[in-house]
Amino acid sequence: MKEEQKILLIVLDGLGDRPNDALSGQTPLEAARTPVLNHLAEKGALGLVDVINVGIRPGSDTGHLSLLGLDPNTYYYGRGPLEALGANITLNPGDVAFRANFASLDGKGRIIDRRAGRIDSCNQFIKAIEKIKLPCKYVFKATNEHRGVLVLRGKELSPNVSSNDTKNTGVKPAEIRPLDDSPASASTAKIAESFVSQAKKILESHPENKKRKKNKLLPANYLLLRGAGGYTPLPNFKERYGMTAAAVAGGNLYQGIARAVGMDIIAVRGATGKSDTNLLAKVLTVKNALLTHDFVFLHIKGTDEFGHDGDANGKKAFIERVDAAFAELANLDNTIIALTGDHSTPCALKNHSGDAVPLLINGRGVRVDGTQKFGERDAAKGGIGRIRGLDLMPELLNLAGRAKMYGT
Amino acid sequence: MKEEQKILLIVLDGLGDRPNDALSGQTPLEAARTPVLNHLAEKGALGLVDVINVGIRPGSDTGHLSLLGLDPNTYYYGRGPLEALGANITLNPGDVAFRANFASLDGKGRIIDRRAGRIDSCNQFIKAIEKIKLPCKYVFKATNEHRGVLVLRGKELSPNVSSNDTKNTGVKPAEIRPLDDSPASASTAKIAESFVSQAKKILESHPENKKRKKNKLLPANYLLLRGAGGYTPLPNFKERYGMTAAAVAGGNLYQGIARAVGMDIIAVRGATGKSDTNLLAKVLTVKNALLTHDFVFLHIKGTDEFGHDGDANGKKAFIERVDAAFAELANLDNTIIALTGDHSTPCALKNHSGDAVPLLINGRGVRVDGTQKFGERDAAKGGIGRIRGLDLMPELLNLAGRAKMYGT
Repeated sequence: MKEEQKILLIVLDGLGDRPNDALSGQTPLEAARTPVLNHLAEKGALGLVDVINVGIRPGSDTGHLSLLGLDPNTYYYGRGPLEALGANITLNPGDVAFRANFASLDGKGRIIDRRAGRIDSCNQFIKAIEKIKLPCKYVFKATNEHRGVLVLRGKELSPNVSSNDTKNTGVKPAEIRPLDDSPASASTAKIAESFVSQAKKILESHPENKKRKKNKLLPANYLLLRGAGGYTPLPNFKERYGMTAAAVAGGNLYQGIARAVGMDIIAVRGATGKSDTNLLAKVLTVKNALLTHDFVFLHIKGTDEFGHDGDANGKKAFIERVDAAFAELANLDNTIIALTGDHSTPCALKNHSGDAVPLLINGRGVRVDGTQKFGERDAAKGGIGRIRGLDLMPELLNLAGRAKMYGT
Repeated sequence: MKEEQKILLIVLDGLGDRPNDALSGQTPLEAARTPVLNHLAEKGALGLVDVINVGIRPGSDTGHLSLLGLDPNTYYYGRGPLEALGANITLNPGDVAFRANFASLDGKGRIIDRRAGRIDSCNQFIKAIEKIKLPCKYVFKATNEHRGVLVLRGKELSPNVSSNDTKNTGVKPAEIRPLDDSPASASTAKIAESFVSQAKKILESHPENKKRKKNKLLPANYLLLRGAGGYTPLPNFKERYGMTAAAVAGGNLYQGIARAVGMDIIAVRGATGKSDTNLLAKVLTVKNALLTHDFVFLHIKGTDEFGHDGDANGKKAFIERVDAAFAELANLDNTIIALTGDHSTPCALKNHSGDAVPLLINGRGVRVDGTQKFGERDAAKGGIGRIRGLDLMPELLNLAGRAKMYGT
């Protein structure tokens, strides 16, 4: 038996794309000048990944679970709990967690912005919000920008309630309703509604919002709750794969997923979970993490942001910045590197799609496939072929000499 | 989110083939001159489809269920009910339906032709057959040529009975037997046997058969019953996929499958479900149907017929006729076109095989893969790779901007 290798899994969020007119029919990845990725491809092999399954449009949460080897059909219990874990809230079975958005309501009670004018941070409202009285315990935290998390804690709670977020502007928020006939769902919906209406009163009269209005900024005067989920512990990564694991990720959700499977979260100064993130700092942190951990998960969000903005040139340029930062990773010893996306976010769609994502695997033992560069259509011709997201971890464990034999 | 596209699914029955000596080692599709299909391929992408799964030989019924996204392991309840629906018989749960073949019996009771000399139609026998008395209700209809449908309707019926069709000539028909120990199966077998023996008497002495014998034509003097199946409604296409759907198909089975999932069946003058069908009329009907429906299913049977006849040159020539008719489809706006087969029918085998079928997908957003022409081995190198029949609908929904996100 050969020496075991380490594994570096790099997820460029929303990496996959479609041929784009602004790039003469190339995808951003195809159009980008990526000498480092091309070098890794030349010494490695490419393929396509159907992250959930062919044609299925993954969320970022379900996509990551799948890439980490956890079938979302079994292990996905909603985005709320993953966001709560990302915000460093310890969850207990029975808790119900929601994502929260600070939003802007006009005088007639209609949503005018679902993100409160992309406010920088909502930490200044937390003290006031903590005055809310509910018939159960709760934790509320602000995370990035307009985002926050609400965790309800008590007996007889249920995640089976609707959202007050209609996803539209110019309309009043919806009522949070129970989605089944159980008393727990009815009571949870009532508690969530009470939280929202108390928060509305508090936020409306909050001095920070008065200041914002004076400065012609949209107020953060309402809370949209969604992604309700109960908490069930996920299988522990180390127990499942026998590897110590670390995550380098700026975004709250990705830290949450990593924490949910028991990875160490390594903080990086300047990792914002956005396109202005400090890529080099993240890459250097990854190199260090590989000294102390068997498996490192690096998450980079910017690609997805440009996809959602429909900015093909921006996505291309960001990929070029990523490529430059990855020069540090080009010659890692004894490490299987896998680089892929959690889903496609085609700029032409400004949304996630079910198009297969390109995959690059590099490292000792890979059947080098003669690929010259990394791109969606190069990947379609690659030696790995077309695999599913759930196949990725077994493939990497195998290449790293860490797979158990099935049979004898 | 961008505008949704329409979807046109074209199934050339039994399209796939194997290298054929009569075509210098090419398949009929590879050998055919197909400028229109090649143009669609050039602006699209190719792949291979394992309609049921790798190496599995699909029937036309199970193959179509799979392409329409219905796992035949769950949803296939026999050919009889699908044929009955195609004959416009309304089925109720509890009914048991059989396909019926009018066949020719010699003086010693041996089958001499399983298709009664490929008789044009059997409508002339229906009145006489309707005199049959059974201990339950029944409906009998003639469909195309030698084909018909028998539906038994009553309490305590079971589809779990054998066929009297040995699939051989020169031998006596088999007895229809129960395939389990239930009283319902025993009684259904007895009823079916009674139907067959009464029909035999009626047909033997029928004036039309006396006329046929005089004209040296084989008599239609016996009924072979097979494909017994009970009826369970299939998932409704519109509810499942959120698309209004229409079918343009000459063959009875294909109309039945379309009706079973709630598609509108659009009649076409000259659509025969055979190789003499009016291809242009079907194609023009499809263009019209795309104005009023989100999804159109076009079925063309001829390819399969030539395959069963072992006529590679005929299959090639028919594909060329199809190609010419498809010129009308070459520049559809806002439509994802998918063209594939429900199975392979290699001319060298004269039967269905489990060889993967070629797939062509064309339309806005497709990752054009540089393919120059449409053929089995071009498809094996295509950008879509190798997918399963059940993956096709998700793939098309994704490209058409109609896929729901799984997760957030």
